Amino acid sequence: MLPYFTQLYGNPSSVHTVGQEARYALDSARERVAKVLACRTSEVVFTSGGTESDNAAIIGAATALHETGNHIITSSVEHHAVLHTCQYLENLGYEVTFLPVDEYGNVSPEQVYNATGPRTTLVSIMYANNEIGTINPISEISAAVQKRAVMHTDAVQAAGFLDLNVRRLGVDMLSLSGHKFYGPKGTGVLFVRRGTPYMPLLLGGGQERERRSGTENIAGIVGLSVALDMADTSREDTSANCTVLRDRIIREVTDIVPDTNLNGHPIQRLPNNINFSFEGVEGESILLGLDMAGVAASSGSACSSGSLEPSHVLLALGQTAELARSSLRITLGKENTEEEVDYLLGVLVDLVSRLRQLPTLTTTGS
Amino acid sequence: MLPYFTQLYGNPSSVHTVGQEARYALDSARERVAKVLACRTSEVVFTSGGTESDNAAIIGAATALHETGNHIITSSVEHHAVLHTCQYLENLGYEVTFLPVDEYGNVSPEQVYNATGPRTTLVSIMYANNEIGTINPISEISAAVQKRAVMHTDAVQAAGFLDLNVRRLGVDMLSLSGHKFYGPKGTGVLFVRRGTPYMPLLLGGGQERERRSGTENIAGIVGLSVALDMADTSREDTSANCTVLRDRIIREVTDIVPDTNLNGHPIQRLPNNINFSFEGVEGESILLGLDMAGVAASSGSACSSGSLEPSHVLLALGQTAELARSSLRITLGKENTEEEVDYLLGVLVDLVSRLRQLPTLTTTGS
Repeated sequence: MLPYFTQLYGNPSSVHTVGQEARYALDSARERVAKVLACRTSEVVFTSGGTESDNAAIIGAATALHETGNHIITSSVEHHAVLHTCQYLENLGYEVTFLPVDEYGNVSPEQVYNATGPRTTLVSIMYANNEIGTINPISEISAAVQKRAVMHTDAVQAAGFLDLNVRRLGVDMLSLSGHKFYGPKGTGVLFVRRGTPYMPLLLGGGQERERRSGTENIAGIVGLSVALDMADTSREDTSANCTVLRDRIIREVTDIVPDTNLNGHPIQRLPNNINFSFEGVEGESILLGLDMAGVAASSGSACSSGSLEPSHVLLALGQTAELARSSLRITLGKENTEEEVDYLLGVLVDLVSRLRQLPTLTTTGS
Repeated sequence: MLPYFTQLYGNPSSVHTVGQEARYALDSARERVAKVLACRTSEVVFTSGGTESDNAAIIGAATALHETGNHIITSSVEHHAVLHTCQYLENLGYEVTFLPVDEYGNVSPEQVYNATGPRTTLVSIMYANNEIGTINPISEISAAVQKRAVMHTDAVQAAGFLDLNVRRLGVDMLSLSGHKFYGPKGTGVLFVRRGTPYMPLLLGGGQERERRSGTENIAGIVGLSVALDMADTSREDTSANCTVLRDRIIREVTDIVPDTNLNGHPIQRLPNNINFSFEGVEGESILLGLDMAGVAASSGSACSSGSLEPSHVLLALGQTAELARSSLRITLGKENTEEEVDYLLGVLVDLVSRLRQLPTLTTTGS
């Protein structure tokens, strides 16, 4: 992607040679993405990230179909980019069903089928949860929608680990974020199946076939497309390696540390995601302790780190606010090793034990 | 900006050290931008580009103020990112005044003053026109608005050449695009003065103080901020150098080539912009000829290149569609030289003369 910051600086909309070099890079990137998604190149829209893709998908389909109906179905554990956008539409008069989830964070095809009515225009259910890693059966959910509404999935967290073939998934729209699969931040994709009703979120010069105006971020788009191609090629190997490490961490921590809960599904789970609640310990304290030991972890989504609100995902699983505040999310990367897991386990077990001996940190009730 | 693609890969919302390094870079970039704009750091919102900034400003202020009024004032020669967004709001029931411009493309403070009424909530007038380079008297226009409405200016084309001090300009909102001042594509700024009514366009994790959700494009933001700082530091020198070259091109071409019109203001004009209409010659033919000679030019805005529509800006100046189609936009860069201008002049004069001898290319009526 680097030459597109310097010598290949053209604007792909320009007629001249410098512009056409950029156009060629843009077209090639689109082909690379379309190949992974198994879609047409004309169905790939480049955006500034997963948040824009989610906003554009939901607002784009809902407003395009507002004369047909005003009912949207989503789940209570979606990323805030979906949840807040649906709440925004609710404030504008749309009717939104926020489906509850089971103890693992799953939405079932039956729930979606039963919620769908004649006024339903859009269903948006995430492929895999960003906090707890639970994987939803998207192709079954798409089948349950039976083309009675536009089917969108936020696949931001799934990319690099799960199948992104949109035909097999049966979705009409799908969101991706570049930096979730080692691409650059500030890049994203929205797949929009041909014929899907859609109103653009960004208006202007009419780029991306009138679906996303703004001069294209060529360097970022090239970077995203190559990263997606690489992630897809190594997907099965990466998933297998991460699954081994993930299951070892889950097994050893739940064996050794008392009063530990695994949040999310034990099997239908992203290979790189681990999420624990340690009763009586503040998640933020664990984070800080891990950071001092050189381990970067999270207490939920990075977006809401530092906020005092307990995770809406853990609350939706039926946890108390206190237990939700004691959660720790560990995300594995493609280069993590058994030795790093040894180190993590040593630090984490010791840390939780020490924190539990500090009585002042255990009173977290609001 | 490059380390932020590799070793400094953190998400600034993360609590851990890797995240905090990114947070520090983000804060520093914001200070750099705030210094150039002479505003508070909290008033700087990073976006994905000029188009997003314009969309966010107009939709953000208009919808936040919809209970106060529904009247928006803009001009007929704005960039499509402003124009199409205003038309979108017009379709939703807002009342939009598209002010006509004079023969040079200028809007006057008196026009804005006279158009402003009790229901007016937003005025959006561009600082300098992207196609014809005409500079509007923004501080006088802001003064004419007299705080009766939110005052936004699209300063995308002005950056690097004109004063961006928002206090002197008196604006409440101002849009910038990174790649217009040698920063990366896919980056932009929206200045939002403290206290300005505003609804975010992108919803989600609440980044940018709830005004623009989405994981921050750290590398791009760092690149934009350094590029803006550099452009501002060399602004007077660059402007002086470009002005000399610009005026030489304008003088020699209008002297040598018969039936040539200069579009835009002869003096209140961006130092790097030249826009001619050559009667009886297709602008696209000139472009292709220049490109074969190694000169990259444009027939209007890059966004609408390749479209057969004549420029809305030139039509707003009162030109016929035929004359508008015969336009050529030449944009100078900070590194252009007298020798390059010699070369351009030789090629251009010869090209127009040869094209005028081809009778088939002179019949351009629709």
